[in-house]
Amino acid sequence: MQPRIGIFGASGYAGLELTRLLAGHPGVQLAFAASERHVGTSVADLAGVDGATGKLTYVSFEAARAAAKTCAAVLLATPAEISLALATELGEAGVGVIDLSGAFRIGDAAAYTAAYGHAAPPSALQRTAVYGLTELHRAALRGAKLVANPGCYATAATLPLVPLLRAGLVTTDSIVIDAVSGASGAGRRASEDYSLVELHDNVRAYKVLTHQHRPEIAQSLAAAAGGPVDGDGRAGPGSAAEGRCGLIDVTFVPKLLPIPRGILATITTRLARAAYAAELTRVLRAAYEGEPFVRVFDRVEDVDLHRVIGTNLCAIAVACEPRAGGRVVLVSALDNLVKGAAGQAVQNLNLMLQLDETAGLSAARRFH
Amino acid sequence: MQPRIGIFGASGYAGLELTRLLAGHPGVQLAFAASERHVGTSVADLAGVDGATGKLTYVSFEAARAAAKTCAAVLLATPAEISLALATELGEAGVGVIDLSGAFRIGDAAAYTAAYGHAAPPSALQRTAVYGLTELHRAALRGAKLVANPGCYATAATLPLVPLLRAGLVTTDSIVIDAVSGASGAGRRASEDYSLVELHDNVRAYKVLTHQHRPEIAQSLAAAAGGPVDGDGRAGPGSAAEGRCGLIDVTFVPKLLPIPRGILATITTRLARAAYAAELTRVLRAAYEGEPFVRVFDRVEDVDLHRVIGTNLCAIAVACEPRAGGRVVLVSALDNLVKGAAGQAVQNLNLMLQLDETAGLSAARRFH
Amino acid sequence: MQPRIGIFGASGYAGLELTRLLAGHPGVQLAFAASERHVGTSVADLAGVDGATGKLTYVSFEAARAAAKTCAAVLLATPAEISLALATELGEAGVGVIDLSGAFRIGDAAAYTAAYGHAAPPSALQRTAVYGLTELHRAALRGAKLVANPGCYATAATLPLVPLLRAGLVTTDSIVIDAVSGASGAGRRASEDYSLVELHDNVRAYKVLTHQHRPEIAQSLAAAAGGPVDGDGRAGPGSAAEGRCGLIDVTFVPKLLPIPRGILATITTRLARAAYAAELTRVLRAAYEGEPFVRVFDRVEDVDLHRVIGTNLCAIAVACEPRAGGRVVLVSALDNLVKGAAGQAVQNLNLMLQLDETAGLSAARRFH
Amino acid sequence: MQPRIGIFGASGYAGLELTRLLAGHPGVQLAFAASERHVGTSVADLAGVDGATGKLTYVSFEAARAAAKTCAAVLLATPAEISLALATELGEAGVGVIDLSGAFRIGDAAAYTAAYGHAAPPSALQRTAVYGLTELHRAALRGAKLVANPGCYATAATLPLVPLLRAGLVTTDSIVIDAVSGASGAGRRASEDYSLVELHDNVRAYKVLTHQHRPEIAQSLAAAAGGPVDGDGRAGPGSAAEGRCGLIDVTFVPKLLPIPRGILATITTRLARAAYAAELTRVLRAAYEGEPFVRVFDRVEDVDLHRVIGTNLCAIAVACEPRAGGRVVLVSALDNLVKGAAGQAVQNLNLMLQLDETAGLSAARRFH
Repeated sequence: MQPRIGIFGASGYAGLELTRLLAGHPGVQLAFAASERHVGTSVADLAGVDGATGKLTYVSFEAARAAAKTCAAVLLATPAEISLALATELGEAGVGVIDLSGAFRIGDAAAYTAAYGHAAPPSALQRTAVYGLTELHRAALRGAKLVANPGCYATAATLPLVPLLRAGLVTTDSIVIDAVSGASGAGRRASEDYSLVELHDNVRAYKVLTHQHRPEIAQSLAAAAGGPVDGDGRAGPGSAAEGRCGLIDVTFVPKLLPIPRGILATITTRLARAAYAAELTRVLRAAYEGEPFVRVFDRVEDVDLHRVIGTNLCAIAVACEPRAGGRVVLVSALDNLVKGAAGQAVQNLNLMLQLDETAGLSAARRFH
Repeated sequence: MQPRIGIFGASGYAGLELTRLLAGHPGVQLAFAASERHVGTSVADLAGVDGATGKLTYVSFEAARAAAKTCAAVLLATPAEISLALATELGEAGVGVIDLSGAFRIGDAAAYTAAYGHAAPPSALQRTAVYGLTELHRAALRGAKLVANPGCYATAATLPLVPLLRAGLVTTDSIVIDAVSGASGAGRRASEDYSLVELHDNVRAYKVLTHQHRPEIAQSLAAAAGGPVDGDGRAGPGSAAEGRCGLIDVTFVPKLLPIPRGILATITTRLARAAYAAELTRVLRAAYEGEPFVRVFDRVEDVDLHRVIGTNLCAIAVACEPRAGGRVVLVSALDNLVKGAAGQAVQNLNLMLQLDETAGLSAARRFH
Repeated sequence: MQPRIGIFGASGYAGLELTRLLAGHPGVQLAFAASERHVGTSVADLAGVDGATGKLTYVSFEAARAAAKTCAAVLLATPAEISLALATELGEAGVGVIDLSGAFRIGDAAAYTAAYGHAAPPSALQRTAVYGLTELHRAALRGAKLVANPGCYATAATLPLVPLLRAGLVTTDSIVIDAVSGASGAGRRASEDYSLVELHDNVRAYKVLTHQHRPEIAQSLAAAAGGPVDGDGRAGPGSAAEGRCGLIDVTFVPKLLPIPRGILATITTRLARAAYAAELTRVLRAAYEGEPFVRVFDRVEDVDLHRVIGTNLCAIAVACEPRAGGRVVLVSALDNLVKGAAGQAVQNLNLMLQLDETAGLSAARRFH
Repeated sequence: MQPRIGIFGASGYAGLELTRLLAGHPGVQLAFAASERHVGTSVADLAGVDGATGKLTYVSFEAARAAAKTCAAVLLATPAEISLALATELGEAGVGVIDLSGAFRIGDAAAYTAAYGHAAPPSALQRTAVYGLTELHRAALRGAKLVANPGCYATAATLPLVPLLRAGLVTTDSIVIDAVSGASGAGRRASEDYSLVELHDNVRAYKVLTHQHRPEIAQSLAAAAGGPVDGDGRAGPGSAAEGRCGLIDVTFVPKLLPIPRGILATITTRLARAAYAAELTRVLRAAYEGEPFVRVFDRVEDVDLHRVIGTNLCAIAVACEPRAGGRVVLVSALDNLVKGAAGQAVQNLNLMLQLDETAGLSAARRFH
């Protein structure tokens, strides 16, 4: 009998992607898909999946809360405030929770409230959350009960920087993160502003210096710059709250692109000492050797969205001026709905349930 | 009798846009459109223009060189090496030259050769070139004989930064310029890499830290930071060569977008002293007050490509953290083929010929 | 003193395009732009126009109704029921009315109600309306007081067919009209279904056999097949109502494309007698000789959206099998917001006001 | 030991899709991928696949011809003339051949030469070819040695029509097929005409009445109208050549869309007798009951590209006017590279090798 899994918020874009991934997952069964807006609709119809998953119909949150208590784990693709309530209730019932909202990502309560505009989760609960950037916190994720699944931008910004920060190769005082994202990152929107006519051929920056992923990134980089974080079993979001290190502040400039999916991030900093790009590439390769979902390329031109769309991959490359203090530009790409949301959630679910980490996830891309 | 104008390289994207603009220009007449590839083809057919301009057929460069000598001015939408030869020949014949290539943009010969891979123009000729960022060098452009029309990225990066540099409001040591551009910036391409299937829904960074517009930007910022440049009659590209100031180095990260037109640049630096965004906005507004083609907005979200595509406008806004040393993010948008190339060239042509600077240019946008 | 013009429904896509065109029109002044949703907003801001037009602010319909009575003419970019009420009120006040809705396009009351789902206009009023397919009804449009501006699909389907029908060259019993349209044809939509993520890379047929432009097309083709219609001063929508000819029924299949603008229609029928494509092309050329906004091409591949977007042009070409009964395929392209709506409305306004028919309208395209 | 399969023409779009599908196929192994242009390149690199398939490098056709003789079957994604030569050579060696070109699709030699511009295959070889429209010729495809894999447009046009023709529900004298296709249908192109800038936001019809898929469609429809074709073991392309039925001629109008993938076809004909759309839908459902890759929908609006892109599905729906002689419009959608090429080829390969027909193929879609 396979572990039973439930999804709250199953009809949003992250929820649909979770549904698609779990429908093809060989080791779990989807017990329910909860969507207040689509109660009674066929999952096959809305999510385009086949088999047992397709035969489900969407249920209300009320109905799902009862069903959830018989599940091994639930995935929350819900707003932070709803995630907070559900994680509390289901955690007490012993159900594993992977939350795709920001509710448990930020250890510092003041930073959380500034970013999300409501009270931070109780610190006792927050301290049990493991930050789900899988490649950096794998040990703590195995058997975790509450996972704070990372933000899409935070994943794209953190994976390339952390190995260079840990190696002391780059400085931390003037990191600039620029990231372009497809429109699905804004979620399903019934709004003129997100209509095809308004977005097509258009680009704009938004939430410049105020985006809620900025403190999330700052916290991860601080942990990386401050020393290894995966050894003590409580990693990520807890770190900053526990005062072990400050935040590394960054400039973060997100931009909205007229495409449905994908994030390309370019991260600028400086070399702490003289080094050629090839050395930085080697450090990145060593850090991610054997990782099924991180690929390090030799040239920044090799990192593009076509390589990653529809896959759980993050692609990375680096360019630099080799003198001490020389400029460093890291480029990363991922699918915001897969490695940036649902795919990484399934990766974490696999660890939580002690399954093969790659089960149900593909690194194969469509060439387009 | 209106002044006669010629275009070399009239069938590339910048050349077509020049043709379109001159066809609607009330004060000049297009005498010839030279394109080696399309000799004998109707201009109406290829460029989609009406009237006298549409009745022209493309001529060879050989034929055009003779015709050019009877013109008031020519526009060169040609590779740098060809521009260099034509500018020399036509300059000697007393014809005004506006060059859209990089041939005359960079005052420092070594920097030029590093960027363009061939010998810099003779310094005597180079010193006569006026850098055509119209809003910054208007006095020198009036009646100039040789104009180095700026690069598209350089225009987008320089216009927002210069007023803040001149006012001493931002620091110069860690400027990062990130810019996304539509595919027409790469010119007409018969290549798989630029096919719709390969580019659609795709994004990649390219020429990171090595793009030829980087020294061009560096030179303009140095001039701005070093003091007023428009007073002595010889501005822009000449400055650095004459050793009056060093270069201000920048990180420049260009990215290719799956759209035909438009540049959105985000420029990151730090405050030299505490200031609110509103103060920076006021400085930008004061600098560009009365300018027909620069618009300063209150919010960075207001700067998008739809505002500028098809127009000669550059749209600008700024966000910042108000403490001294706080982060500053400038956002600018323009149409790479209009304000970033052909439109600015016509603006400069108008100054060269002592016509109304806005003749033939529109600030009106299509809402899309 | 230029004639004063008003727009009702000025913030929808057709209304914005009207605003843009009138802002650049040399012979009229925009007196008001009415939009219930944007009362008080600057027209420059929303419509991106300059000059006197940009200085207007949107007014309520209530305020506009008073102002309208001092205008030479108003343009109604409003739903059919609102157009009906406004046209009645303003017509009685002697104001010229050009209506962009379907309210006055269909002469047959039963066909109207079937298509629009509400009662047809009073037949006395309907009989005064002139159908505004300018090239076919120019005489009646000069000095008309009420113009039913044609639908976008109807314009694309009717212009190519009418000359061949009048010449008796094609049969009328199995006409199939397939037309793909950009999403602006559906108007401004705050709906998930029209969001970029849902429409991008997607295509679907809609309202197959039930679209409200089908009877409008049927009526025009009947008039054309039945004889000349422009001679008697009362053309178009009146014809069918007056029983002079039946409808020519057509199959009409519209499709929604993931682009903002443009219609490409392909119209299939059969030759009434043997004829080469070149003969059909000659008939089309003769019919539209001297027309400023219709272009007939030799090859169907020459008719594409890039030729027409942003212009008031309709491009046409034809292919056929030359035997009697051979298949004929006409291809036409236009910008649904210009020749398919606002541009044709301005063309009709010019006729109504006895101005140059091309004033404020461009046939020049942007190459893209 | 799994059957060994080879691909000739592995770096074109159909070849890349074949590579992707075979890399995920549980029952075969890819022995070689031949591409003259990419000899020595890693398959993982170009095709983005993992595992054993990714470890291959592209080989020359020369090398591949030797390797092919040890394979159970080869897939030819090559031009028709090359397919003809390879199929002859490999067929004689006893290797199963699935050809994705048009070389073996048309039974009538004169029609073939008119469509493809070179001599038809020898009739002895042609008669052994089975037309691979899987749902219509499954019996003959089991164990076939030479399969003519259908054209993408032909698949989209034939699947919806055949059940209605067989049931005698629609007439055959005025069938009009309009189909829009993504640009990958034109293959990899290093040409300005297929560059993003030229195609973006553009649509045009092409090869109107002259497209090579027209006789292919005509032949299939004739077979369907003339009686059952799957009973005698030799179906499809052979039929017409053997004179058992004439062709049913159709009007075929293909259009090029600014998207990478997908075909939406609308097919217009007339009812042979009075019938409601629901009856036609029931006939279609009955015809395709149990088919893993055909889905019949109730409403034409439900058939869109998002349902089929990346899958081996063909989606179908029908609308009609219920009177005898009433108009019928069928709508179908498929991914031109999957059900329209590589996916159907794998479906046929599975039948040829007596594997599960759905092995390696997915009906699950990405919601986008």
